[in-house]
Amino acid sequence: MTGTTFFSDMVQTITERGRKLWAFAPREERLSHGISGLEGLCEKLLSSRGEASGMALAAEILQQWSRLSDEDQRKFMVLLFDTFGADSKRLDAAIETYRAARTPRAVLELHQAAEPRRQELIRRLNLAPNGISTLVGMRERLLSLKADTADLESVDADFAHLFASWFNRGFLILRPIDWSTPAHILEKIIRYEAVHEIGNWDELRRRLAPADRRCFAFFHPQLADDPLIFVEVALTKAIPATITDVLDETRAPIQAQDARTAVFYSISNCQAGLRGISFGNFLIKQVVEDLRRDLPKLDTFVTLSPVPGFSGWLTRERRKEHSDTLSAADQAALAALDDAEWANDPLRSAAVKTILMPAAASYFLKGRTADGRPIDPVARFHLGNGARLERMNFLGDTSSRAMRQAHGLMVNYLYKLDDIETNHEAFAQRNEIVAAPAVKKLLRGDRPARSLASAKGANTKDKQPPKNKANSKELSS
Amino acid sequence: MTGTTFFSDMVQTITERGRKLWAFAPREERLSHGISGLEGLCEKLLSSRGEASGMALAAEILQQWSRLSDEDQRKFMVLLFDTFGADSKRLDAAIETYRAARTPRAVLELHQAAEPRRQELIRRLNLAPNGISTLVGMRERLLSLKADTADLESVDADFAHLFASWFNRGFLILRPIDWSTPAHILEKIIRYEAVHEIGNWDELRRRLAPADRRCFAFFHPQLADDPLIFVEVALTKAIPATITDVLDETRAPIQAQDARTAVFYSISNCQAGLRGISFGNFLIKQVVEDLRRDLPKLDTFVTLSPVPGFSGWLTRERRKEHSDTLSAADQAALAALDDAEWANDPLRSAAVKTILMPAAASYFLKGRTADGRPIDPVARFHLGNGARLERMNFLGDTSSRAMRQAHGLMVNYLYKLDDIETNHEAFAQRNEIVAAPAVKKLLRGDRPARSLASAKGANTKDKQPPKNKANSKELSS
Amino acid sequence: MTGTTFFSDMVQTITERGRKLWAFAPREERLSHGISGLEGLCEKLLSSRGEASGMALAAEILQQWSRLSDEDQRKFMVLLFDTFGADSKRLDAAIETYRAARTPRAVLELHQAAEPRRQELIRRLNLAPNGISTLVGMRERLLSLKADTADLESVDADFAHLFASWFNRGFLILRPIDWSTPAHILEKIIRYEAVHEIGNWDELRRRLAPADRRCFAFFHPQLADDPLIFVEVALTKAIPATITDVLDETRAPIQAQDARTAVFYSISNCQAGLRGISFGNFLIKQVVEDLRRDLPKLDTFVTLSPVPGFSGWLTRERRKEHSDTLSAADQAALAALDDAEWANDPLRSAAVKTILMPAAASYFLKGRTADGRPIDPVARFHLGNGARLERMNFLGDTSSRAMRQAHGLMVNYLYKLDDIETNHEAFAQRNEIVAAPAVKKLLRGDRPARSLASAKGANTKDKQPPKNKANSKELSS
Amino acid sequence: MTGTTFFSDMVQTITERGRKLWAFAPREERLSHGISGLEGLCEKLLSSRGEASGMALAAEILQQWSRLSDEDQRKFMVLLFDTFGADSKRLDAAIETYRAARTPRAVLELHQAAEPRRQELIRRLNLAPNGISTLVGMRERLLSLKADTADLESVDADFAHLFASWFNRGFLILRPIDWSTPAHILEKIIRYEAVHEIGNWDELRRRLAPADRRCFAFFHPQLADDPLIFVEVALTKAIPATITDVLDETRAPIQAQDARTAVFYSISNCQAGLRGISFGNFLIKQVVEDLRRDLPKLDTFVTLSPVPGFSGWLTRERRKEHSDTLSAADQAALAALDDAEWANDPLRSAAVKTILMPAAASYFLKGRTADGRPIDPVARFHLGNGARLERMNFLGDTSSRAMRQAHGLMVNYLYKLDDIETNHEAFAQRNEIVAAPAVKKLLRGDRPARSLASAKGANTKDKQPPKNKANSKELSS
Repeated sequence: MTGTTFFSDMVQTITERGRKLWAFAPREERLSHGISGLEGLCEKLLSSRGEASGMALAAEILQQWSRLSDEDQRKFMVLLFDTFGADSKRLDAAIETYRAARTPRAVLELHQAAEPRRQELIRRLNLAPNGISTLVGMRERLLSLKADTADLESVDADFAHLFASWFNRGFLILRPIDWSTPAHILEKIIRYEAVHEIGNWDELRRRLAPADRRCFAFFHPQLADDPLIFVEVALTKAIPATITDVLDETRAPIQAQDARTAVFYSISNCQAGLRGISFGNFLIKQVVEDLRRDLPKLDTFVTLSPVPGFSGWLTRERRKEHSDTLSAADQAALAALDDAEWANDPLRSAAVKTILMPAAASYFLKGRTADGRPIDPVARFHLGNGARLERMNFLGDTSSRAMRQAHGLMVNYLYKLDDIETNHEAFAQRNEIVAAPAVKKLLRGDRPARSLASAKGANTKDKQPPKNKANSKELSS
Repeated sequence: MTGTTFFSDMVQTITERGRKLWAFAPREERLSHGISGLEGLCEKLLSSRGEASGMALAAEILQQWSRLSDEDQRKFMVLLFDTFGADSKRLDAAIETYRAARTPRAVLELHQAAEPRRQELIRRLNLAPNGISTLVGMRERLLSLKADTADLESVDADFAHLFASWFNRGFLILRPIDWSTPAHILEKIIRYEAVHEIGNWDELRRRLAPADRRCFAFFHPQLADDPLIFVEVALTKAIPATITDVLDETRAPIQAQDARTAVFYSISNCQAGLRGISFGNFLIKQVVEDLRRDLPKLDTFVTLSPVPGFSGWLTRERRKEHSDTLSAADQAALAALDDAEWANDPLRSAAVKTILMPAAASYFLKGRTADGRPIDPVARFHLGNGARLERMNFLGDTSSRAMRQAHGLMVNYLYKLDDIETNHEAFAQRNEIVAAPAVKKLLRGDRPARSLASAKGANTKDKQPPKNKANSKELSS
Repeated sequence: MTGTTFFSDMVQTITERGRKLWAFAPREERLSHGISGLEGLCEKLLSSRGEASGMALAAEILQQWSRLSDEDQRKFMVLLFDTFGADSKRLDAAIETYRAARTPRAVLELHQAAEPRRQELIRRLNLAPNGISTLVGMRERLLSLKADTADLESVDADFAHLFASWFNRGFLILRPIDWSTPAHILEKIIRYEAVHEIGNWDELRRRLAPADRRCFAFFHPQLADDPLIFVEVALTKAIPATITDVLDETRAPIQAQDARTAVFYSISNCQAGLRGISFGNFLIKQVVEDLRRDLPKLDTFVTLSPVPGFSGWLTRERRKEHSDTLSAADQAALAALDDAEWANDPLRSAAVKTILMPAAASYFLKGRTADGRPIDPVARFHLGNGARLERMNFLGDTSSRAMRQAHGLMVNYLYKLDDIETNHEAFAQRNEIVAAPAVKKLLRGDRPARSLASAKGANTKDKQPPKNKANSKELSS
Repeated sequence: MTGTTFFSDMVQTITERGRKLWAFAPREERLSHGISGLEGLCEKLLSSRGEASGMALAAEILQQWSRLSDEDQRKFMVLLFDTFGADSKRLDAAIETYRAARTPRAVLELHQAAEPRRQELIRRLNLAPNGISTLVGMRERLLSLKADTADLESVDADFAHLFASWFNRGFLILRPIDWSTPAHILEKIIRYEAVHEIGNWDELRRRLAPADRRCFAFFHPQLADDPLIFVEVALTKAIPATITDVLDETRAPIQAQDARTAVFYSISNCQAGLRGISFGNFLIKQVVEDLRRDLPKLDTFVTLSPVPGFSGWLTRERRKEHSDTLSAADQAALAALDDAEWANDPLRSAAVKTILMPAAASYFLKGRTADGRPIDPVARFHLGNGARLERMNFLGDTSSRAMRQAHGLMVNYLYKLDDIETNHEAFAQRNEIVAAPAVKKLLRGDRPARSLASAKGANTKDKQPPKNKANSKELSS
């Protein structure tokens, strides 16, 4: 109990250590010598056998990197590709040896010879105090360069490989964020919030301080002041249908003990440099566990989520000559969407709803990307985590952003602990979309005679199983 | 300042989290199915795309592993070798592709194909709460098996590779250990002390509580309760010549502010499972930094070290027909050592000294292993860190262990910050031994006419440079 | 949550502050001038209006005090009595004013005029960093002097008055003590344990580390490193009858979750200088609350307590010509007790038991001090807290100390939350002893014809109610 | 080191304890019975011997108090006066006893008999978890009632007496406040700032986050989340003359290491209920100590302070028929002040300055309240702490508030450690104002011929020593 306290004190030294270790670096090397100077330092770091001098060297390289111009940073990345790849002579020799005799040792040498030298370089850069922070920033820059420079893809593969190992779930720490959290952490919550913008500190307070609000973030011991990902939670009596239900400034908070439902209404990744290193599923599951322990009366864990891909998809369907989803009449009726005021007019709004909601059901249950996965990225995330699509909420978010992205649509994904594994397997193995009956019914039952008339057979299925059709009937029944 | 406090709280969750996550694992899998059951679980973990179920799976595997019999643990290791190596089909294909076109992508695929599958398996086992702790224990077992089973060498290479990355200096935390440290940490200090045994809590108190004592340890955030390595420090006015000077129960402690010298008199590695992952050089340098900041009057940083290889080497020299080090007369005189009481007799002791000390100088300055390194492992460590051999202390430690290992010899290695890099480079690049003039003089000056008469030219040099003789003269002058 | 962490950091400054503030004191005053010098400093501190110089002055006085010889410390206490009492002129004037007109202001002046000047002096001494610690030590000394110097009684009254205010329950903090508690706290647990001696660190470990052991202590924010009182708890399945049941080294610990009973088997006050400032009742009740929250299955909270006054009382009864408790035959039979080996002989032991246990029931239920309270100090404590005497255990503790004090008798006091207030009131208001039926039955039912035959009417009652006899029957039935 | 960490954890229990202890209170008592119910509970608390039931009772009383209407809270205070004063019978008896024999015991009894019963009541109310917080709020209310109800003066005396003891410097903890401080503490800094308003979180950030800003607060262990007093500090190269120098948003922060001067530019008391319990002098001195240790190059510690009483005093002087300070011409010239725009007109401003600054010197050096103390409350505070009046800054603060209170005047008080005691004594014992020569010179030298011509003899003195005129010359020379 108090033992962890002893330990937690340790962590204090991390930040403090940072400052003083720069002093290790010999003076003259602390001047920047541009790219070529950096290359020399990197080679020196790689050849160094003295690990302590390595610390100073790593710190020096990272500091010089931080001061490079944008263009020089790009050049450095290209340098990593050109100069710090695998040693091809050694690799050729390793291949020959392996082909001569496939011993374990030959495989090991082959593995090591094929490892780009930059992997070890990055590992050694991590010797620097707070090095990981700069390395994450370095990859953020790299990601922005990748689009233009195909070669950098393999440089990024090395960063991603090491980050996946270092930011292993086993090294992450979940922390509640509340109104007693240090301000310098909270200002990052404001900055990183990616779903429902936090305009100022008063808004932040309303998200954190009331008795029926919770927030949790993952941290890494070496990035003490910077959350990796966080989720905002509202404790409610029922599943909310609109974001206004959740964020309304005038609502009366309830006691946490009276809540039955925990609503995950915003999940934000914080570190652009960690793109593709996934924490979200761990986060949600751990938060569910923690909330259940603290508030045993909670029995429903659900999201209130945006549908960022819906408008784009619907526009494409509206423009198709023969849409599987929309009849010509539907397409005509949806012209109403082109007038920004449609949602404020009850009549038009009701008319839109009868077409939009079944279309949304199609979007989720039938729409697929080229590789057979759901179109909606948020759906991919939650369904991939084992949630089910529980409910679709017409005009759940009337902010201009949500109207633009999803014609105001929001959905709830339900996390039911007993079903998570099954749902996850169904999705991961067979691309099956698990949805509540009401959602499925909307697809088929509501308007079978009309726009969905053309949708035969396969279209009534909830999934897209090109490989194993045999299973499909069970799910669609 | 307080920000790190916020963070340090986080760490508390690590241990607590451990307990409850076992609950994730489905009941039926929690029974052990022996080796074959474990193999199935490992394959499942590797194929799993659902990372959260992976946590439970990893925990389950580690728990089952812990309960295996010794023989089954051995079998599991062999299984890791046999079944979780690289996929040879994939590897062959990757080689073909690479030979066809040496693209970066082909190198990447080659690298990945040559990676034994067990590397990814170990990474995923680390998903388990406190998984790292069990993994370190697993490698400890593996190391004990390696001697008998050559194949396991490559399994160990994978553990060592991952541990080197995870226990990167950047992730380690230095903590002072003192009399207000939690008892469960302190009992590990007692247990792990490897140089000068700590008999009980009273002795421990004498090592930690007085104003002129310090102790520091490295910890890893995921091994909160277990030090990785620690060093015990005595603050003194002068460089001590014997361990009794340091540990004498009746000595009067001095004020820390009055000390000029910090003596590192015991350094112990704690985790057998981390053998070969070196922390020691980082530890000493950081401790020097910390001490200098807290006690600016300290100007000498020195060890008081054992010489574990000396007796063995000397015995070999004594038995040689023609020793470069010992004349026949020396050999005869050293027969005195065979009587355990020699050290208690001033006359005999004085006689031994005149021969033993120059021999010791030879041991350090001229003795070399087959690969050209110093014989003494402690010397290799400190000289490799950039220290210099400062002084040799006759009968510095008269404990039975030290008499057996080194005929009581102790030495001081001096850490002089300005020279560390130069010394280190000299040693690392050219195997040069940096020693104080007094030590070198002992080698040559003391008895040139006798035992060292046969030592020609090269023998008077402090190093063993088969490759670049050109440099050698400078050092020996 | 994290807010308290912020705060808890604050406390770190307390200890650190101590060191540097001595520097405030002007050099020349830091020399001791003996008693008369001290008197001058005390007068200066009292007259000082500059509170910051007061800090240095207070620190100086406390430091000088600490260096006084025993005899000078005694003289200083007498000085406090002689010179720092109430100002009698001011007091006389205040009395006159009050008698002239009984205004609130006159009462206030009377109150202040009657306050010994040493009260304010002690308050100002508490300005010194860590002053409270020295003041507690000062009172410890004072208590040892009181016996010989009647005048010091009123000096002690002033200390006691201020300590009661400063060590108010509202300022105390309960902390679990376990095997991860800092060693310098744990060594105080060893030192302060007053009931069942802790011989060494291994014994301490057995008291703290197993899953079925708990320990809690009260601390004061200004005495960070020093517990005020602590209680050791064993978690068991049933109420233990002997201390061996609890402390047996070879017992197999149970899981905390499996325990139904929490046994408070040792309660120790730590600070002799806080004698008479009671914390014990708060401690037990808070520990009961904390344990119930953490381990909801616990339903029995009970002590295993010594009976320190029993042997003394029994000896007196044995020597009485006409004991109400012991018949002449009983007295004769109890001669067996005079042979130290009686407890090892089953026959003699059984014979003793039939007399000793009813006598013990008398001791608890009927024995009274001159002022009508139970004879046993431990009984007074627990009964005063609202516990009931649950069970008496023959030969519960066969250590030489327990044999000497209580012929091996131990008892269990039961803390039943619902009854605590009622029991407490019964005891506090009417001196009623609440005991389990089995205890009462032993008194009357077991041997009514014999030794208790002489006990008439009132003697069969469990209480000593001189004032309200009406109630007594209910309790005795 | 880590020991204090152990302790600091303890404090966490304080807040948490609060919640669960309410459960102690029997249900039926938790209903409010108005004033008479409260009176009964208070009597019960006072008569209670069971201290643990006292905790629940105290909590109940404080909770009921919090729910009382304003009028009932007033009645409760009157009740404390009427019903919980000293027991006059006991007091009369004590007086008789004392008059019969003036024994120490009689004095003690007199002291205790004269103590209003509400003192013990307040002490016992402090048994409640977080009781101190409610008690401080209670006194805040009491202070607002005192003006109208003279009797409450003596009730307040009791609160003040106990608070002075409980908020003794020895129990206070200094904490740095920075941008990593928990938000719920920081929002209190915004709320409590009493000198230079903090408009929003961005402004707060500018006060705390830059490298050349510091803030420190005193806390009490039982009021963990609420500062008692705080000071804001700017690190600068020179003594600033205007608040704009300090708070200018566009200034470039300097490195803390480069600062020579620490400017205390805002000191705010936070708890209205602790009025009269002084912390400020301790705060400043401790902050000076802490800053000096962390930043050894700091050599000047100075305030930039408002002059809240200046305009009022000057107005009175301007209206006097015969002012000692202002000649008729001065009075006429100062009519310029009545046009709010005067400060924006360089010509008028320069004219004002020649009269205003000597008048300000008079205000500080000669102006006195009826009881002989400086008129300015801020001056009384800093001079009383041992600072000296270092410099007066014309138009140092042109905010509307400062223009209204002081015609824009600000001053610097200098804290020179070596002189603090002497200055303090001079002020405390003899009401001497210690000022820099430049300030004194302004008074005499600048315009001797005109407005100050009438000021003879005594007027040239810096102090107002009605009692010991003999000393006055030394100071004024």
